[in-house]
Amino acid sequence: MQLPTPVYKPDFMITRASHLVSRVRNLAASKAFYCDLLGLVVSDEDDNTLWLRGLEEACHHSLVLKLADEPAVERVGMRVLTEDDLDLAEQHFAAAGFPTAWVEVPYQGRTLHTTDPAGTPLEFCATMDVCERLFAHADRYHGACALRLDHFQIVTPKVRESLDFYNSMGFRLSEYVVKDGNLEMVFLQRKGNPHDIVFANREGPRLHHCAYQVPETHHLMHVCDLFVVGDKEGQVEFGPARHFSPGLARFLYLRDPDGHRVELFPSHYHTIDIEEEPVEWEAPGFKVGGWIVPPDKWWNDTMAFTQTAS
Amino acid sequence: MQLPTPVYKPDFMITRASHLVSRVRNLAASKAFYCDLLGLVVSDEDDNTLWLRGLEEACHHSLVLKLADEPAVERVGMRVLTEDDLDLAEQHFAAAGFPTAWVEVPYQGRTLHTTDPAGTPLEFCATMDVCERLFAHADRYHGACALRLDHFQIVTPKVRESLDFYNSMGFRLSEYVVKDGNLEMVFLQRKGNPHDIVFANREGPRLHHCAYQVPETHHLMHVCDLFVVGDKEGQVEFGPARHFSPGLARFLYLRDPDGHRVELFPSHYHTIDIEEEPVEWEAPGFKVGGWIVPPDKWWNDTMAFTQTAS
Amino acid sequence: MQLPTPVYKPDFMITRASHLVSRVRNLAASKAFYCDLLGLVVSDEDDNTLWLRGLEEACHHSLVLKLADEPAVERVGMRVLTEDDLDLAEQHFAAAGFPTAWVEVPYQGRTLHTTDPAGTPLEFCATMDVCERLFAHADRYHGACALRLDHFQIVTPKVRESLDFYNSMGFRLSEYVVKDGNLEMVFLQRKGNPHDIVFANREGPRLHHCAYQVPETHHLMHVCDLFVVGDKEGQVEFGPARHFSPGLARFLYLRDPDGHRVELFPSHYHTIDIEEEPVEWEAPGFKVGGWIVPPDKWWNDTMAFTQTAS
Amino acid sequence: MQLPTPVYKPDFMITRASHLVSRVRNLAASKAFYCDLLGLVVSDEDDNTLWLRGLEEACHHSLVLKLADEPAVERVGMRVLTEDDLDLAEQHFAAAGFPTAWVEVPYQGRTLHTTDPAGTPLEFCATMDVCERLFAHADRYHGACALRLDHFQIVTPKVRESLDFYNSMGFRLSEYVVKDGNLEMVFLQRKGNPHDIVFANREGPRLHHCAYQVPETHHLMHVCDLFVVGDKEGQVEFGPARHFSPGLARFLYLRDPDGHRVELFPSHYHTIDIEEEPVEWEAPGFKVGGWIVPPDKWWNDTMAFTQTAS
Repeated sequence: MQLPTPVYKPDFMITRASHLVSRVRNLAASKAFYCDLLGLVVSDEDDNTLWLRGLEEACHHSLVLKLADEPAVERVGMRVLTEDDLDLAEQHFAAAGFPTAWVEVPYQGRTLHTTDPAGTPLEFCATMDVCERLFAHADRYHGACALRLDHFQIVTPKVRESLDFYNSMGFRLSEYVVKDGNLEMVFLQRKGNPHDIVFANREGPRLHHCAYQVPETHHLMHVCDLFVVGDKEGQVEFGPARHFSPGLARFLYLRDPDGHRVELFPSHYHTIDIEEEPVEWEAPGFKVGGWIVPPDKWWNDTMAFTQTAS
Repeated sequence: MQLPTPVYKPDFMITRASHLVSRVRNLAASKAFYCDLLGLVVSDEDDNTLWLRGLEEACHHSLVLKLADEPAVERVGMRVLTEDDLDLAEQHFAAAGFPTAWVEVPYQGRTLHTTDPAGTPLEFCATMDVCERLFAHADRYHGACALRLDHFQIVTPKVRESLDFYNSMGFRLSEYVVKDGNLEMVFLQRKGNPHDIVFANREGPRLHHCAYQVPETHHLMHVCDLFVVGDKEGQVEFGPARHFSPGLARFLYLRDPDGHRVELFPSHYHTIDIEEEPVEWEAPGFKVGGWIVPPDKWWNDTMAFTQTAS
Repeated sequence: MQLPTPVYKPDFMITRASHLVSRVRNLAASKAFYCDLLGLVVSDEDDNTLWLRGLEEACHHSLVLKLADEPAVERVGMRVLTEDDLDLAEQHFAAAGFPTAWVEVPYQGRTLHTTDPAGTPLEFCATMDVCERLFAHADRYHGACALRLDHFQIVTPKVRESLDFYNSMGFRLSEYVVKDGNLEMVFLQRKGNPHDIVFANREGPRLHHCAYQVPETHHLMHVCDLFVVGDKEGQVEFGPARHFSPGLARFLYLRDPDGHRVELFPSHYHTIDIEEEPVEWEAPGFKVGGWIVPPDKWWNDTMAFTQTAS
Repeated sequence: MQLPTPVYKPDFMITRASHLVSRVRNLAASKAFYCDLLGLVVSDEDDNTLWLRGLEEACHHSLVLKLADEPAVERVGMRVLTEDDLDLAEQHFAAAGFPTAWVEVPYQGRTLHTTDPAGTPLEFCATMDVCERLFAHADRYHGACALRLDHFQIVTPKVRESLDFYNSMGFRLSEYVVKDGNLEMVFLQRKGNPHDIVFANREGPRLHHCAYQVPETHHLMHVCDLFVVGDKEGQVEFGPARHFSPGLARFLYLRDPDGHRVELFPSHYHTIDIEEEPVEWEAPGFKVGGWIVPPDKWWNDTMAFTQTAS
């Protein structure tokens, strides 16, 4: 497999997967799922919107849920380091032929809307309002104790194009899956663990899941117990078990009341140095769930983007 | 459901599920499974037999594996408190019309062979040789860190007869499952947690599983990882997840190289006082695996007893 | 060390350490400590009394806290199996020269007050009202998730007399500590783990601590975090660490707002069979806290009994 | 407290704390400590040197131990991103008046020796030989399961100078402690968690500790148990408990056979965005060990650098 040459010193600094903007049909039901069960914290809320963050996040929100008639995903959010990087990002996307727009977004600094080769609606900003990290409030840790947003997975037939484009912006390929000689999956990262964004080969662009990090393995089991209380065990989709790629991470996949999928995982390896080659996995030898076969719905159910004009 | 009257002061004292005697086809493969992966300790071994105990057991063995051409279970072992209790047990089984025999068993005191209404081949003794509990040897804790044998599950169409007979010997019913007005499952205990022996309604008598207690939830996940190493993930049958009955215990079911099933679980509630009624569960509302549906093989695969003359 | 001959078939059946009745100066502060931080459940409360139980206890209470001007311990509670055992217990204590009295206690069946050679005020009953075990309510597990009362430690110069008397009632000696040729500490049990009651050699009779079992090691660390929130870290007295005796159990000692000491521990070995000799430890080689030296207050602070007439 | 202006786009990219080069008196004893107990992996060894890495590190070594007559620290190692960054680093240190030297180091690419305002002997490289990350080998996880080197703590009276100099190279200040109006401690980071290097105000330059990340809280308790086995509990210096700064991280401090101190911790928050102000703590309100007071030796014992010419 011919891989693109890594770009160690990109023209602008995207720093990390930052936030997701989604549509839900019932804010109270969403709040019960994300706050009571997953452990996220409400930074703000009004009649139409919930702004949530993880227990150890200082940023105002990593998940924005908007009231709507149909569930969908509006935006995948990323951070750049500085305001200058934001302008350079705008130039980069425009030069690549993608529409760009400056928008006002509550609690965020200047915000850029654009899209990528897969058609993923993207949102970049350099700053958000700052909220308190809650590590000094052990009494507020509950449920799965979701700590911070970690990454997104997008399904798209344009896996190769996505790899090349994100590589050009300094994303590093940590692992990838090959099937019948073609790229089936690429794990791309900026923040030094295996992924900020993942592209998998299926009809798209659609969102497969976003992932939050939790403290320890027992939190995965505990949150499953919480779903069984109240007969919500149908929302526990896959796990707790262990992936092969990336990095044999332990995982649990849950479905929110609108069908949005969230992965919880306790830890990942770090990857910062440049001398290491990306790990290649061959499907179908590649075991997705370790000792559990994923259900068909985990493969097939994905969420549409609203695809509003950028 | 009419339940038998509990017998709080039985004529003799059976104290606990004690040990299992099984046949396996390859002692080295069994040792790798039970010692390297589950964490059991070898008390003794020769060319034909492995005597194993849990890390915190003082008894010489809770699992005896004998080399044979075909896998099977020879005996389900229980303890009585004293030698007097052993003689009284012999009289009780003989008076109930079951064959009894006194046999010599290595590392055990005087040993009684008999059977029960389901046809389960039983073995009773009051004493065994004493081995060191390994709690002072944290360096020998590894794999699933199996601590001690806890209980057996027998499948038999004679669930009601089994309940009545074991009840007459002072076993206490902790929980039971009813299906279409009939007893589907009974959990019977002597040692103060929910079960020493369980009878479930299916063709039998055959053994469904024996169960070992492990220290904590993370040991269930860790041992699954160990099975994935070396492509043995097919032996991880069901879990980690959480039962409804008894007591919503967390569990993991594994299959040894001969197909013998072992359950691992981290903890159970205690039940000693007499004022509490047994818990009744109604099938099919009863959820076996919490958030996971058990695979068909977990329901259907069971192990024959050798049914050698008692 | 000459040890008394075990009594395997005592005349009456004491089954387990059951409950503690203590005096506190502020019920709201006690409730915050025992319920919000340790995880105990309120079975009932009025202006003068709190009745608490562990998350997986079916008995109405394992801790009764009464409003008073001075903190003290009123009674150490034990269970007998049946009402007949209660009458036989009364005869046993009366025959040994101890005062006995039948008293009415809310939520308990017939209740016997008496005392032992150390002067410990004791309370026995066969039954209590039944409450729901909360294992099906994972959403109510919080704080240290205290599951059930396990044992008491009494300090008294009469360690030998206590051993002999409790041994005569069928308590089994699991472990003991010898210092300069004398019994320094005895661990006595009825329910099959290392202890229901412990006697240690110091001025007494006074209560050193009661102990509750918690699910896993991480609960010990989590509850310490909760004490640090709100500047209560001074109530974390000793641990988390690991004892030598009994059974190298992990532990954490906390002090409630009135100075009552509570031990939390995640697990203990089981001891039911009769062939095992009690474990002898020699002080001072014996390491109390594994890798931590206990603070002086852990040795010296103990709580007076009210010593009301039995 | 006037803090230096952060440098978001430094002239060259230091990426992370990388490795430590220390002197020990007995390689076998060191190997027992670091490999058998902490869980590190031997990448290579000869009669005079041990090269060790964490279980999930791909770099050849994060700890190099050299046989010597006296224990000491030779070098604190950091990574830069590319070979170009290495040349730019050399220019930066030379321009600041520090001696620089290019040296050959086994298993490392081109290596720069220099020093900082505190006098810390530093070593920079862009690449090392690549070894296998062992996440696919759950069977090799044992002891504390140390995953990866995380950070160093240097004691020096030149805390302010160190802050200013490291800030100029793009290190970000995450937290700091003020005492009597002076900087007592600064936590500086490059890799997005609270620290790669910490400077604390005491006689120096000397090394206080290096820190490795472990998977979960229970690994801290388990490794303490391992030290108690074999009467090594004296090497468990402080913890397991929880720091206040940075980020209320759980910790355990151990001393190796030569007195080198190693911290183990299970997790830290992430800090990447620029809008968050450094956290200020005020000594003495600042609680170092949460609920445990650190022993004097934890404050006072530190390790000399060999201070060989750079």
